[in-house]
Amino acid sequence: MHTLYFALGSCALASHIALLDARAEYELKRVDTGAGEQHSPDYLALNPKGRIPTLATPQGSLSETPAILAFIAQSHPEAGLAPFDDPFALAELQAFNSYLCSTVHVAHAHRMRGTRWADDPVALEAMKKKVPETVSACFELIDTQMLKGPWAMGEAYTIADPYLFTLAQWMESDGIDPTRFPRVLDHRTRMAERPNTKTALAEQEAS
Amino acid sequence: MHTLYFALGSCALASHIALLDARAEYELKRVDTGAGEQHSPDYLALNPKGRIPTLATPQGSLSETPAILAFIAQSHPEAGLAPFDDPFALAELQAFNSYLCSTVHVAHAHRMRGTRWADDPVALEAMKKKVPETVSACFELIDTQMLKGPWAMGEAYTIADPYLFTLAQWMESDGIDPTRFPRVLDHRTRMAERPNTKTALAEQEAS
Repeated sequence: MHTLYFALGSCALASHIALLDARAEYELKRVDTGAGEQHSPDYLALNPKGRIPTLATPQGSLSETPAILAFIAQSHPEAGLAPFDDPFALAELQAFNSYLCSTVHVAHAHRMRGTRWADDPVALEAMKKKVPETVSACFELIDTQMLKGPWAMGEAYTIADPYLFTLAQWMESDGIDPTRFPRVLDHRTRMAERPNTKTALAEQEAS
Repeated sequence: MHTLYFALGSCALASHIALLDARAEYELKRVDTGAGEQHSPDYLALNPKGRIPTLATPQGSLSETPAILAFIAQSHPEAGLAPFDDPFALAELQAFNSYLCSTVHVAHAHRMRGTRWADDPVALEAMKKKVPETVSACFELIDTQMLKGPWAMGEAYTIADPYLFTLAQWMESDGIDPTRFPRVLDHRTRMAERPNTKTALAEQEAS
């Protein structure tokens, strides 16, 4: 049994959908980030970074979405969520998820989490202002160069798909018209229609 | 045969050391980032992100250091650079490298690459000013919580070690006294003494 610590609207959704895709046994624990619960001693004991998500497993806790997703895939090989027998294909998948984590999510975070990188209110405003441009550049690259179609990595659905879906959901709040990126939007629409996506969203709302 | 596209002083050093650790056959190509060569059509054909590093392999090109490192490890299993037979241990290693990529490197990048996230000169100055604090917080976490010792993941040397070494080398230029983080400094010193580290640094200088 795993426990996924999540916050509503966070990137934890990717791991949640992947747990469903893997038919893993899990329970959810909602972290009230508005109240700063991610900085509580109990949560920091699980994840000293004080960030969402954490996956508590029988072997210990994991953080970082690309690592959690790969763990779920590798420990449920029957679900076929990642090509662990093909080093190059696996690396391409890991590169996709690493880009989502270190570039797309980081670009997005400059809208609401600018205090991670600057204190001056003028700087925070300047960061916020540039988010539509920087996040658009990311989705332009994904749309034209990275998304193989129909799924992120091609014919096979993988752990890149719930992660891409999760971040692509944030486009409108970042001031981006998703119709500019038709292939990403098509992917997002198909992901939204999957039962596991609907289940994850419903479970999070109910938690 | 692989080709590693690198720039001096960049995070490509991690992949370079790992190629030596894996006894992989490789050649180096130095990219003149000062002249903007990473934005040339030839380079963008290899890596449409226009970033360093790229590893060109017989199967295609890879970007994103965590993915390149994992590819080198998995395709050279005899070198024992990552625990691919243990999903949890592998995920812990990938989480370490993901943190280096998406948090440590990103914090550092706000000193010289602030234009990725804002245009206002006041913002760029404010970002630069906070770098010693944000990068220190990362190394504090690594020093006290993440670095198991003697190597990043414990007794076994892995692909987390050349990556940690590469980023830890940047502390002084980020205005940080490395003696504040004695375990990271000890790791850095031992890494610097390894023949493969010396070889990589010498090969980069000579390229």
